[in-house]
Amino acid sequence: MRQNLRVNGARLWSRLQRLAEEGARPDGGVCRLALSDADKAGRDLVVQWMRELGLTVTIDAIGNVVGVRRGEEDGAPVMIGSHIDTVATGGRYDGALGVLGGLEVIETLNDAGVVTKRPLAVAFFTNEEGARFQPDMFGSLVFTGAMALETALTSVSIDGRKAGEELKRIGYGGDAPVGKPNVHAYVELHVEQGPTLEAEGFAIGAVEGVQGISWTEFTLTGQANHAGTTPMRMRHDAGYVAAAIAVHARRIADELGGDQVATVGALTLSPNLVNVVAERALMTIDLRNTDNERLKQAEARLMSFAVKAAAGEGVTLEARSLARFDPVPFAPHLVARVEAIAKAFDLPVKRLPSGAGHDAQMLAAICPACMIFTPSAGGISHNIAEYTKPEDIAAGADVLLRLVTELAE
Amino acid sequence: MRQNLRVNGARLWSRLQRLAEEGARPDGGVCRLALSDADKAGRDLVVQWMRELGLTVTIDAIGNVVGVRRGEEDGAPVMIGSHIDTVATGGRYDGALGVLGGLEVIETLNDAGVVTKRPLAVAFFTNEEGARFQPDMFGSLVFTGAMALETALTSVSIDGRKAGEELKRIGYGGDAPVGKPNVHAYVELHVEQGPTLEAEGFAIGAVEGVQGISWTEFTLTGQANHAGTTPMRMRHDAGYVAAAIAVHARRIADELGGDQVATVGALTLSPNLVNVVAERALMTIDLRNTDNERLKQAEARLMSFAVKAAAGEGVTLEARSLARFDPVPFAPHLVARVEAIAKAFDLPVKRLPSGAGHDAQMLAAICPACMIFTPSAGGISHNIAEYTKPEDIAAGADVLLRLVTELAE
Repeated sequence: MRQNLRVNGARLWSRLQRLAEEGARPDGGVCRLALSDADKAGRDLVVQWMRELGLTVTIDAIGNVVGVRRGEEDGAPVMIGSHIDTVATGGRYDGALGVLGGLEVIETLNDAGVVTKRPLAVAFFTNEEGARFQPDMFGSLVFTGAMALETALTSVSIDGRKAGEELKRIGYGGDAPVGKPNVHAYVELHVEQGPTLEAEGFAIGAVEGVQGISWTEFTLTGQANHAGTTPMRMRHDAGYVAAAIAVHARRIADELGGDQVATVGALTLSPNLVNVVAERALMTIDLRNTDNERLKQAEARLMSFAVKAAAGEGVTLEARSLARFDPVPFAPHLVARVEAIAKAFDLPVKRLPSGAGHDAQMLAAICPACMIFTPSAGGISHNIAEYTKPEDIAAGADVLLRLVTELAE
Repeated sequence: MRQNLRVNGARLWSRLQRLAEEGARPDGGVCRLALSDADKAGRDLVVQWMRELGLTVTIDAIGNVVGVRRGEEDGAPVMIGSHIDTVATGGRYDGALGVLGGLEVIETLNDAGVVTKRPLAVAFFTNEEGARFQPDMFGSLVFTGAMALETALTSVSIDGRKAGEELKRIGYGGDAPVGKPNVHAYVELHVEQGPTLEAEGFAIGAVEGVQGISWTEFTLTGQANHAGTTPMRMRHDAGYVAAAIAVHARRIADELGGDQVATVGALTLSPNLVNVVAERALMTIDLRNTDNERLKQAEARLMSFAVKAAAGEGVTLEARSLARFDPVPFAPHLVARVEAIAKAFDLPVKRLPSGAGHDAQMLAAICPACMIFTPSAGGISHNIAEYTKPEDIAAGADVLLRLVTELAE
């Protein structure tokens, strides 16, 4: 019986569109920055839905909201979660899909009269995006005990407000305890935010883990010189070294292969004039891999090349780490189940890494966790044009339903 | 007798320092923008010196000033020239050396009682730098007939004034004819403005010509994408293509060798963020060579690579020529004489191109012309720190003296 359960895709789609009205932008996108008035309106709506579905709602001191559905037995719930905050030019699906997908799972089980052995929970975490407060994902960080509550409460927003004050103002500073989570397993349904599934014709992504991230800033200092009067052999061209490093970063990604990506997204020359050899180049290198050993290899090869290239040109190199996070692998047995369930539903499925961060990576530290990806049209996210087809959303929610009911037995 | 004539280096040095007082900057540099009050003061001083030395001064309609010393015979004079305008953060020697070096030649001949067969002339041309009016060198362009007087007179300065009005205001709109120059030969003594002579231990540069210049702007348009979620094979990274072109520009210069230089001085990415693949790159490529065929080769190789690199990445390429000037070779027999005279004086001499533009390239269109370079400390010019040692300045003026007395026989 439970094997045949399917979600109501139209109902889930309708909830997604309804939530998008809170913080709706005139251009069709959504601006629901964490702990803003729009976020409060979105929270109120989701909490109302949770209560209508019979969930017991608790709110903790950093504003994370958890709605619990009782099981046949007590104990740690199987949690479905994500976030409902957005970036300023956000879309309708990033985050919202995981939360409202969870509600759709609950409603489907309610309609079918199914009570799972373990409790189920649907959660949304505060400030996943980090678009209003730093750091991003402080809700799930505090929830799992990886960050002190006080640190998050005193975070100051881009508009100069403390998170603690904003929580109080919108009425979402609750009394549920933080830092001692009791979760049996965690599953997050999310849009891919990348182009792979759509481009390759897959409906479901079985997410193997979140890529480790290494951000480095290089400051190269050479000598400003006249582009006409300075022979090539006498140059100390910071711009040339920066370009050589950018080209080499691509080569490293190509040679390491697999999930390795490398991006030089920011590069600024000075004085930045057509006829002056650049004295200074400021550049960033973003390296990511799900395999920490390969990520370290990429970092080492990049640094070795940069040091050599700078020395060869008589340019000084200063390197500064801007961010470094180890990869987070998801529970292999859960990844395998996502894959198997999708296949059972005849949904084309691909294992892939997540290139972006998600609350699931915090939950992975305290319980078996995994993610299910649905395709993003054109790979576009953090953009008002973000879109996922209704049938893909329904398919993702079906996989979510099957997986959490299995886990709750 | 004339073979043994030497300039008075101390007197020349003293005039250079005195002229630097007009438009002096508090930091030791000079700001004597064309047709400004400071330029007027500098002009008045040089004209006064010309008259004190017995020269007959004429001023033409674009403000070029020519002081003529009679020869034994009438006819076209051998002209020594340069400019006295500076950039806003200029030094004391760029331009001034050629003009005051000319006056020193005159005074040395006066002192020795030498009258040359042909007349001699010392000239300074208006707005060589182009720091206040566009285009640069419009004085010598009008003088030689390469530009219509009206075009130059209606040029509007960076502070919104017409050149014609400024000439009238400072009293340097004269009545000498333009566009029909009568010059037997032209010699310009100038600081190198590059590092080669100093770095390689030469006192004199025998300038073979002015490099041809090719400036191209590339606009590369790809697709902004998430640096984590977009696999390498799906990228359209405008920044990567720009970097590859910059690296290839260096390779072209290395492979062509000789005088070929290549510079990517300006490169701007957008959105220029650490974690976003660049959608757009705007870059300039500055190619220069004294050999026009090789310069064309460099241009063709660059364009061929850029087109291929952009296509390979699925990035569109727009190319726009910002400037293109053919090389200007100086009269070979004059270049050879500079070299020979320097050697006769036991001055280490090197043939080299000029990477910067000079009035001499305009004069080269109407008479045999050449330039003599003196070393620039650290290759620095267009900078308050511009410096050339007194003994190098005296050596350059000695070569100038010998060459013009030869040419005036």
